[in-house]
Order: sequence, then structure tokens, then C-alpha cells
Amino acid sequence: MSPQSLNELAKLILDCDNVSILTHKSPDGDCVGAGLALCYYLRSKGKKANVLNSDGIPKRYDFLSDGYEPQEFEEEYVISVDIADTQLLGDELIGYKDKIDLCIDHHRSNKNYAKKSFVDADASAACLILFELFEHMGEALDVKTASCLYTGIATDTGCFKFQNTTPSAHIAAAKLMQTGVDIEYINRRMFDIKSRGRIFAEQKVIGRMKFFEGDKIAVITLTNEMIDGYGIDRSELDGFASIPLTVEGVEIGVTLKQQKDANGVFKVSVRTTSADASKLCQTFGGGGHIRAAGCTIEGTAREVTKKIVNAAKRYL
Amino acid sequence: MSPQSLNELAKLILDCDNVSILTHKSPDGDCVGAGLALCYYLRSKGKKANVLNSDGIPKRYDFLSDGYEPQEFEEEYVISVDIADTQLLGDELIGYKDKIDLCIDHHRSNKNYAKKSFVDADASAACLILFELFEHMGEALDVKTASCLYTGIATDTGCFKFQNTTPSAHIAAAKLMQTGVDIEYINRRMFDIKSRGRIFAEQKVIGRMKFFEGDKIAVITLTNEMIDGYGIDRSELDGFASIPLTVEGVEIGVTLKQQKDANGVFKVSVRTTSADASKLCQTFGGGGHIRAAGCTIEGTAREVTKKIVNAAKRYL
Repeated sequence: MSPQSLNELAKLILDCDNVSILTHKSPDGDCVGAGLALCYYLRSKGKKANVLNSDGIPKRYDFLSDGYEPQEFEEEYVISVDIADTQLLGDELIGYKDKIDLCIDHHRSNKNYAKKSFVDADASAACLILFELFEHMGEALDVKTASCLYTGIATDTGCFKFQNTTPSAHIAAAKLMQTGVDIEYINRRMFDIKSRGRIFAEQKVIGRMKFFEGDKIAVITLTNEMIDGYGIDRSELDGFASIPLTVEGVEIGVTLKQQKDANGVFKVSVRTTSADASKLCQTFGGGGHIRAAGCTIEGTAREVTKKIVNAAKRYL
Repeated sequence: MSPQSLNELAKLILDCDNVSILTHKSPDGDCVGAGLALCYYLRSKGKKANVLNSDGIPKRYDFLSDGYEPQEFEEEYVISVDIADTQLLGDELIGYKDKIDLCIDHHRSNKNYAKKSFVDADASAACLILFELFEHMGEALDVKTASCLYTGIATDTGCFKFQNTTPSAHIAAAKLMQTGVDIEYINRRMFDIKSRGRIFAEQKVIGRMKFFEGDKIAVITLTNEMIDGYGIDRSELDGFASIPLTVEGVEIGVTLKQQKDANGVFKVSVRTTSADASKLCQTFGGGGHIRAAGCTIEGTAREVTKKIVNAAKRYL
């Protein structure tokens, strides 16, 4: 039976050993932070654990994985963190799809694919669930584990800016800071600093933004040609999805990102001020949160724009 | 004698009536939020109070001042909030400079100009001091007053991102949220939404950014000609000062803003990753916080750039 309380979740965590921790493809701060925090915690208890990711952990998180080395062991237990759906395992980890013992997640759209699941859809981040778990267990966190958890909470809430920010997220931040987390460094790195290539790409993309339905829907497009042209790493493209919604009056912001090595497929990110982005993306087999969701649509940039805008209209 | 504790500050607040609350010129979220919160609180106690500002309260804060009407009364007590120096009173309020009964502020550089001062330089915002005061007094805040305080704390900490963010700031946010503050609306309005004019201006300014000292110092310039050309209100220029520091590798970011109606004078904002911005700006008679400070320098854009860059070099 799935754990019904932090107490039951704690038991599972304390009982397991030789653990593979799975994180989702196109990793973000929350899955990286949660994966590493759980790994560091398990290792601190003398257990063996590794964090796995189909795409590898992007360079921008290397201050969290600094000193992390994979361990050799015979895998006994598999935990997924921040993964709503086995589709998100990615090519390298898809073989795990029926072998996941425990899923710890905060997505309302979680597909309940694991043998046991602990899903708290009210939690701002998977890292917030882990913070509350460790606190419940009475564990004093070291600054590295705390930095992982802080990073996940900060990135998933847009630095405490988005609608999913809860009082609990703020209280967790306050407590994590007290372990000595360098929040200025982390936030500058996660939210502010951009390479010149990224800044140049932003300028171009903003200049080409398209508006629909009385300027209430805005669409930006990143093609492989553009990404290659700006000489930026795909992991640097994280914040682009929030750009369209920064324009006064826009209610649904859409970002199309051409899939690497597949020019006929676009990853579509939707951000909304009030519409249900998750429902909109479900139309195309995707999902996510109410104000931030995603899906994949096939076609040219023009075709994909038409499809998503036509569907989005009904949500205005 | 100046109040030495929240208890003594509370006594002064409870004793005063017919209060003029002064806020600083070029008003920001913290002085507007603190001024209005204090005003709403005093009025809720049956006292008369007004908030005064040399430049008027910018439109972007009208969700906080909605329903606020000036009251008629014979002024008995004058409180300044978030004002480090009487220079910041501005033309309309400069006559108050020797008549300020109580100053409530969080700037380390506070000039101690008032008859009584309560300065907590460790507080992330003037609004945080007021939050802690009201909490100390056991006051239940209404959602409007709470929204004012949240806005001040959020804007002065860059939405809990800057080095001045303390655990207390997070805890205040958690408690203020519980009164029903619409943080998503406030943060979108304060941090995300930009007019098309503003977005266009940003693109241009970024395109013309100048780099010095191995790209460790970056300077952007806003002239009156540019501001007029983009058709944007000066109050929309608030976040520009943080732009130079978003470029990878930049350690000192400088923003020159030509003074309205005075082409030979520039307001200089300095943001740093580790250098002491306050000390740097003090060289030119300015001041502020360690990572964010400002000063005024006379000359052409080229001359002012040369002066500030030459001074900044020594802080790398």
C-alpha cells in the first residue's frame, strides 16, 4: 500500500538500500535538487544510492552535484522523484518504467505508475515534500542537502513568485537558509545570470513574438536553427517559457521549442494568468500544473502555432 | 530618546494622531507599501493620517492605494518611512526636513535626521519592520494592509532573491499570505509584466550595453531622449538597474539614468555581486546598501561613465 503519511514514507526511506533515484528528462532544479538531496541523505545513513537522469545533470546545477560520484552496487530499490509520468523518464531510463518501487511527486497529473506513490499535489515542489519528510524525521540537514532542497523550491516557485508558492514553501526557505545556504549565489545562478548568447537569443525571440486574439495569446518560437545559431546550450533555454506572459495584457503565453534532432516536433510550454494550462495541454496528450504545463505537438512551427492557438482560444 | 525596542516604537505609534507619513521621491514598493500600511493601520485605530510623496504614488501601485483618499486635519505628527536622508524627500516635501518627529527605516546609511529614529539595518525592508511591529502589538492585519507589507518586502528583496533576504522576510511572507494576499497578482505586477514600450526599451538598452575591465563592469544608459522615444513612464524604469548584473561574469553593474529636465545630471545605480556598492556610491555623495546603492553624478553620459567606471575599478 502506498504511504499515507510522512511517517509511512519515512519508514520506506529508512528501510531501503542500494537505491537508484530516477529524475525526469530535461531535468530542472526541482528534480535535480530532490534527487541529489535524497541521495545525500541516504548516503549519510550509510546506504548506497545514485541519481540517474536520461540527459545527465546540466552544468548549471554542478554546484549541487559537486563531489557527487556514482557508487557501485547491486540495485535493490528504485525511487522516482518529481516524475508525473513514465514518458518523462527519457530514453536512457525508460527500461525502469515497470520497476519503480516508490514515486515521490507533487504533480496533480501523476499517473500512479509506481508500486507505491506519495503524491502531494499541494506541495510547491518535490523538494518541499522531502524537506517536510526530513523535518518530520527530525533530521538536521547539512548545507549541501539544504542547498539542493532550497534550489528545488526556489526554481519551481519562480523564486516564491508563482501561484503555487505556499506559506509552507516560505517557511521551508526560512529554515533552509538557517543552515547557511547561499541563497544569493543560488538565485543569481538560477534566475539572473545569462550568457551573452542567451541574452542575444532572448532579444531576437522577443522581437519576433506573435500575438493572437486581441493580444491575449502570445507565442514565441525557438527552432533548432536559432538555438544552434546563438551557440547556446539547450539547458540554458529553461526560462524562455515565462517570456510571453511578461507582456502586459497577455493571458496565455506559449513557447514552442523544436525538438532536438526532430524538426517536425515541438515541445510546447504553456503559461497562463488564470486559464487551466494543464487541461489545455491534456488536449495534446500533455499535462502539468494549472498555470504551467506542457505537451508535444507535431508539425511545422506555423502548424503547431495554429493548433495550440486554436485550442487555447477556448480557455480565454 | 529614540525608541530602543518594538515596544517603545509601538507606544509612539499608539500615542500619535493627525499624522503625515512621508515617503521618498521616486517611490518604490517598499516606501509606498510602508506608508500606506502605516496609514491604514492608524486610520483603523480612529486616527487621522495621510501618505505624502513628492512625485505622487505611481500608477503601478494603485492596487494598494485603491480607496485611499486624503483626509483633512491639522497635522500634529510627522513620520518618515524608508527615507535614509532628507535629500530623498524631494522638492514637494523638503520643507519637512527639520520637522520629522519619527523616522522608521532600514538603511544602514540613515542620516539620523529625525527627532526620534527607529532604524533596523538588518531588516530586509521598511515593511518588514512594520510587520514585526504590528505582530508584536498583536494586531490582526486586514488583507489590504497585509498586501502593502508583502509588496514592500517582495520588492525590496527582489522577490526573496537578493542577499538582503532573511529568514524573517520569508516568515513574514508566509504569515502575510495567510491573510489572503494575492501574491501571484502582486508579483506578476511588480516583477513580470512589462508594457511593450518597456520591453522594447530593454532590448535597445541591452544591445548598447558597454563593458569594461575584462567585462567585469557593465554599464547601461537611459537618456531622456530614449525614455521619451519609447513612450514609457519613468516609473516603469525601476528594474533596469538589475540588468547589467544579469550578464555572466559581470561583477559591478552600473545604470545611468539621465535626470528628468536636467540633461547634465545622471542618477547612477550600482549593483554588485560582492563589492561594496554603498562605499562606491559614497565617493560621489550617495549611499545605500552593500549590494545595491546609488548616487548622482554631473556630466555627459560619456563623462559620467568614465567617472563611475574609474571609481568602480578599485572595488573589483
